[in-house]
Amino acid sequence: MNVQELNKDFENRTRLGIMSSLMVNDWLSFKDLKELLNVTDGNLASHIKGLERKEYIEVKKEFIDRKPNTTYRVTQLGRMEFKKHIEILEKLIKGE
Amino acid sequence: MNVQELNKDFENRTRLGIMSSLMVNDWLSFKDLKELLNVTDGNLASHIKGLERKEYIEVKKEFIDRKPNTTYRVTQLGRMEFKKHIEILEKLIKGE
Repeated sequence: MNVQELNKDFENRTRLGIMSSLMVNDWLSFKDLKELLNVTDGNLASHIKGLERKEYIEVKKEFIDRKPNTTYRVTQLGRMEFKKHIEILEKLIKGE
Repeated sequence: MNVQELNKDFENRTRLGIMSSLMVNDWLSFKDLKELLNVTDGNLASHIKGLERKEYIEVKKEFIDRKPNTTYRVTQLGRMEFKKHIEILEKLIKGE
């Protein structure tokens, strides 16, 4: 049981929520994530930025009906790292 | 998917490790936990104190062969709260 193997970047529950949501969806907007996770704008924005900096999620900025639309998606790196994190978490929880 | 339901006191990976270990063992010593989790004394001590303050774990201090022996066990409250936390975590991870 090596807690060091858990990824510190996924420890925070908002980040767990962002990654979990993006693992089972394609592109999600800030509004989608906010509704899904029921967190404040500031909390969500800061954790999205943190995950972006680590390249675990990517951003797409476009105009839809001349309105700016920002959506997020998990990257290959993010998917791989999060899967690893979840596997270790599940082992830890089962006391293996 | 309500990340608010996750218990902030169990977010930290060392705390996850302490609770997971105590859920599947009876009394464990500081040394046992340190070896199981491979964390520093300071890190372990501070998170044990935090969990104690919330009454999620309890302490037993005794003398064995005239040497002080401190062991820890999960409380009923701790067991209940941690089970709830894990259930929500598992739902979150499965994107439910």
